[in-house]
Amino acid sequence: MLDQSTICAISTSPGTGALAVIRLSGADALTIADKIFQSPKINKKLTDQSANTLHYGNIIYDGQILDEVVAGIFRAPHSFTGEDIVEISCHGSDYIQQRILELLVEKGARLARPGEFTQRAFLNGKMDLSQAEAVADVISSSNAAAHRLAINQMRGGFSTEIGNLRDQLLHFTAMVELELDFAEEDVEFADRTQLHDLAEKVEKLLRKLKDSFQLGNAIKNGIPVAIVGETNVGKSTLLNSLLNEDKAIVSDIHGTTRDVIEDVVNIHGTAFRFFDTAGIRDTLDKIESLGIERTYHKLSEAAVVLLVVDTQNAFEVIEKRINKIRKRISVGQQLIIVANKIDAGKPQTIESLEALELGKQEQLVFMVAKERKNLDVLINLMVQAINANAYNEEDVIVTNARHYEVLKNAHGAIVRVLEGLHNGITGDFLAQDIRECLHYLSEITGEVSTDEVLGHIFKNFCIGK
Amino acid sequence: MLDQSTICAISTSPGTGALAVIRLSGADALTIADKIFQSPKINKKLTDQSANTLHYGNIIYDGQILDEVVAGIFRAPHSFTGEDIVEISCHGSDYIQQRILELLVEKGARLARPGEFTQRAFLNGKMDLSQAEAVADVISSSNAAAHRLAINQMRGGFSTEIGNLRDQLLHFTAMVELELDFAEEDVEFADRTQLHDLAEKVEKLLRKLKDSFQLGNAIKNGIPVAIVGETNVGKSTLLNSLLNEDKAIVSDIHGTTRDVIEDVVNIHGTAFRFFDTAGIRDTLDKIESLGIERTYHKLSEAAVVLLVVDTQNAFEVIEKRINKIRKRISVGQQLIIVANKIDAGKPQTIESLEALELGKQEQLVFMVAKERKNLDVLINLMVQAINANAYNEEDVIVTNARHYEVLKNAHGAIVRVLEGLHNGITGDFLAQDIRECLHYLSEITGEVSTDEVLGHIFKNFCIGK
Repeated sequence: MLDQSTICAISTSPGTGALAVIRLSGADALTIADKIFQSPKINKKLTDQSANTLHYGNIIYDGQILDEVVAGIFRAPHSFTGEDIVEISCHGSDYIQQRILELLVEKGARLARPGEFTQRAFLNGKMDLSQAEAVADVISSSNAAAHRLAINQMRGGFSTEIGNLRDQLLHFTAMVELELDFAEEDVEFADRTQLHDLAEKVEKLLRKLKDSFQLGNAIKNGIPVAIVGETNVGKSTLLNSLLNEDKAIVSDIHGTTRDVIEDVVNIHGTAFRFFDTAGIRDTLDKIESLGIERTYHKLSEAAVVLLVVDTQNAFEVIEKRINKIRKRISVGQQLIIVANKIDAGKPQTIESLEALELGKQEQLVFMVAKERKNLDVLINLMVQAINANAYNEEDVIVTNARHYEVLKNAHGAIVRVLEGLHNGITGDFLAQDIRECLHYLSEITGEVSTDEVLGHIFKNFCIGK
Repeated sequence: MLDQSTICAISTSPGTGALAVIRLSGADALTIADKIFQSPKINKKLTDQSANTLHYGNIIYDGQILDEVVAGIFRAPHSFTGEDIVEISCHGSDYIQQRILELLVEKGARLARPGEFTQRAFLNGKMDLSQAEAVADVISSSNAAAHRLAINQMRGGFSTEIGNLRDQLLHFTAMVELELDFAEEDVEFADRTQLHDLAEKVEKLLRKLKDSFQLGNAIKNGIPVAIVGETNVGKSTLLNSLLNEDKAIVSDIHGTTRDVIEDVVNIHGTAFRFFDTAGIRDTLDKIESLGIERTYHKLSEAAVVLLVVDTQNAFEVIEKRINKIRKRISVGQQLIIVANKIDAGKPQTIESLEALELGKQEQLVFMVAKERKNLDVLINLMVQAINANAYNEEDVIVTNARHYEVLKNAHGAIVRVLEGLHNGITGDFLAQDIRECLHYLSEITGEVSTDEVLGHIFKNFCIGK
């Protein structure tokens, strides 16, 4: 199954930089590197050098010095891929990078496919599949929350959780199979109540993981926030103020702004994805009469709904609006009422708003969006809103759609186990459902995987990783 | 003069990649790195590790693991900058790169200015100024010829040449100054003929270097090629065919195509820069009567002129055109007559063209530009044309505008020496001109340099180099 060829790729970001790194991995990495690398010390060969050392030398191309480089050596199995690795750090000109790649291929290496270094790390047992998948997420994470989830997963947090589930399931199987061994005697060694408790525990764990995907996905792609309200209450002004808060890491650097939805904003380490609620706004009043539920679908996708109201209006008008929106807020969604324009607001309206009774999922903030007054308060509320219904730092959150699919299947299997117990089906049928559940979990960590699945996973990696 | 702070920067190309390298240089590089780096081995400190070694560990941010990295250690004076250097190789996410930079600054490092690592290499005597300047050229070179010149210069080829010139000038000075010591006795120890020979030799060397700038600049920015000829002879078709030959290294990668004139083409490792000759074409006939010499200025900038003629026309018409252009070709320029459309050409025209007598700077090629027929022949002629009046591999070619300016000044000084000798001026005046010439040469290698000059040179570097 393992491809024995030595692979190479430019591992640093494409383009011109001060330096670039070309990575070479495989059994022949050192001998191939020696064919193009020349140390100023006579007869010095990379092949003879210790692991984890750096060596200055020249790359020779066509009999001439192409570049002065530093070669770093890692030796199997103590390397990222588990194979011998040479990392050539050269001057970051495209010309040099391409020539070195050419040379390596000429001397026997092969260009690496996207993610192939990580794939090898997986195939060589350096990490399980869920960890390998997290490597790509670590690289693409652009905010603190998404980054933390990815790093935890890469470091095996998710694998531990799956391991725990497996242990429970194996315990379950052991009990059932003990019974099967004595099937002819028609006894029940495995106490059905005990089995039921265990299955419920597993089901709960699987459900928790499965359900965490919604949050995980939101963190990965930005917490969805809908800004709603009548026209002229200051929605656009508020959005602009929020956009200006963007502590975007590298807004002026290529690659980060591309392909990114325009109003994803990193605030306090969390990405918020603001919706275009034009549709919602326009149909807010017609909604009951026309029943355009489809427009409200977007609202249902939001984790946080910001309802902007103008305190210059009568409280009755505002209250009506609030109540309309309240009907649309479902469990798990946070509603923040933004009472805007308080610098020019009606004192009575403000007073009434202050007295407004708020539900558990509701918050109220008085603002002047135009002057960014209390914007920090709103931002804190938004961040809190997320954390409130969110997770503990230690929680494992599923962020990967493939894992989510597999967890759904595993959950389905354990639900069948519970039903089976309820209906009193025999041990061998139970055992089959448990085995199915175990199989799905193995798919996550990659103990069971097909070339097709692997191909699909790694094709989305960048080359050089 | 030397800034003692420890500096840091992302040294790889900006954006997201498989990995990125953050470079830290200065006396505190290791202790600062130790504040954010945690080895899995207890009590392991980077400060205690040997030079030229690699170390796996975690970067700790806010009490949590930010990333798994490899830290490479170089120790003064055996490093690029001549100072202690730590290179942190992290996952190539923007988020991680920025957090690590933040951490380093928090722990006492300072963000490096553009080119500051190279500037330190210069200030610490690791390379002279002309070598330091070449580092930027090595990085930005996008074709084989420009790359070769830059690498040679970075490796000290140019400095050797300057050193030779200096030796000659010092010899000269010694002779003149010996004479000055005995000035009162009114003798001439230094044989004037000998002095004259020496000055002529230096003048010749300086002139050669100075004159090489035109070629050096052409190689760096693309050999200027003008395509001229009447309308409908196939100039655009030829240009398109040539553009398709572009073995552009990384045409699809950001940073290389930007800021580049649209018709610079890399062919056989040399960049050719094709001119828009619309103006020339239109005024080709009116030129004598109207005297629009300005339009011809562009033609004079070309190293190679491709005159395209249509073999379907009568030879007399073509001959007239050729003769007109011939008058405009000056020494050092190559004229290649492209006899196009020979698949449909008049046999008599082709025959006459075959019999055409060609000058030393002239070539003729028969083509069908549309079908790319004989395009390879034309390309070979173009490449040869450059090499013909160009340089030996060992020749030092000036590519840097600052060096060119300084060489012009140095040349001016030595010309004054020659004139002085001719006019029989006294030794002390001679000595002054020679000292001036020496001073200029020191400016190239940086033995004499002001903060202003250094600032100007390094501000155009990329950050991280």
